[in-house]
Amino acid sequence: MVKALIFDVFGTCVDWRTSVAREVAATGLKVDPLAFADAWRGEYQPAMERIRGGSRGYVPLDVLHLENLHIVSQRFGVVAEDGLNDAWERLDPWPDVLVGLRALREHRLIAPCSNGSIGLMARLARYGGLPWDCILGADIARDYKPKPDVYRASCAVLGLAPDQVMMVAAHNDDLFAARDAGLRTAFVARPGEYGPEQGTDLAPQSDWDVVAVDFTDLAQRIARSAP
Amino acid sequence: MVKALIFDVFGTCVDWRTSVAREVAATGLKVDPLAFADAWRGEYQPAMERIRGGSRGYVPLDVLHLENLHIVSQRFGVVAEDGLNDAWERLDPWPDVLVGLRALREHRLIAPCSNGSIGLMARLARYGGLPWDCILGADIARDYKPKPDVYRASCAVLGLAPDQVMMVAAHNDDLFAARDAGLRTAFVARPGEYGPEQGTDLAPQSDWDVVAVDFTDLAQRIARSAP
Repeated sequence: MVKALIFDVFGTCVDWRTSVAREVAATGLKVDPLAFADAWRGEYQPAMERIRGGSRGYVPLDVLHLENLHIVSQRFGVVAEDGLNDAWERLDPWPDVLVGLRALREHRLIAPCSNGSIGLMARLARYGGLPWDCILGADIARDYKPKPDVYRASCAVLGLAPDQVMMVAAHNDDLFAARDAGLRTAFVARPGEYGPEQGTDLAPQSDWDVVAVDFTDLAQRIARSAP
Repeated sequence: MVKALIFDVFGTCVDWRTSVAREVAATGLKVDPLAFADAWRGEYQPAMERIRGGSRGYVPLDVLHLENLHIVSQRFGVVAEDGLNDAWERLDPWPDVLVGLRALREHRLIAPCSNGSIGLMARLARYGGLPWDCILGADIARDYKPKPDVYRASCAVLGLAPDQVMMVAAHNDDLFAARDAGLRTAFVARPGEYGPEQGTDLAPQSDWDVVAVDFTDLAQRIARSAP
């Protein structure tokens, strides 16, 4: 019996790419907004990797986002104001997300298990109306996914065993890690996350417990499995 | 400018005493329900004190509540089922709490900063309809109030400085500790928390930043200070 569903957020719940590009465009910086958004996101994994590997202590994602903004601004030959970092708190949910989360929340506890900080996730939830019960993820474990402790610590603070918790993600590698940590898994493809040319995560790469076309479908499948 | 308000929960937001007594009465155990609730709560501080002092590693409050249930059941000469521990997830908010929190949430981030675990607080919020943006407190710091790190870690995961955060409590000692940790403070008396004979925390014991008669009054005072 799945008592809680925890969610990847960037890409799975929200469309970071066009939202960040919109915020970049609003600054008036002379850059291609989508290219800038892609480059900014491109620094995401390398920045976290230093922390996962132990060569740097934990700092919240807000700090990494700001450092990466400086790196990318320099590469594009522009000077962005630090306030642009708040773009990551104004990301639009995919169209099916709010309806699906509200349906899921009727019978299950729901929470983000993101690499975003609790503050970032709370402000993002306010912006988009995401009806979380609480916020889990990187700040709980002071480490970054896909390190197993991020999933395990998120279950532990709920007082639940990993097999009572289902990780929902649009990224197969997130689900491989969650399954290795003992969680149930649900895959929802987001073929537009990286734009029209996206070549990864278009389909499930394993026999995940649930494969759903969107969050409404996910809610129906979960309700059928046990109301 | 206060950007977030964080709240003590047991006593300040919810009436634990009559709610726990109601749950005890519902079990049919042959005990005085209010006396049992008082005795159960009476074990709360001593159990946390061992962890604060370092003679025991951090365990979430759910575990302490269950151990204390066994202690108190034995003292009362009854055998309570472990399921009674969930009584702490079914505590009624004081009548002014939901209206006040909804008003505060329009312009401020709101979160519990309780000694309860994230899971306990999330399920309690679902029971009572408490509209938190996220859940902070003991599980964030893996220690118990009034240790300063519980307040500081709660601010840190919001990405806020302590002086941007206001601690709201019905207990003066909670506010002394929060102020020492650099937070703003608001006092709301709950003269019925411990029943009709209550002799403590009937009035503010210092010049807290805000003293309000209830959460509706608190919301109005905060809105007046800066909308």
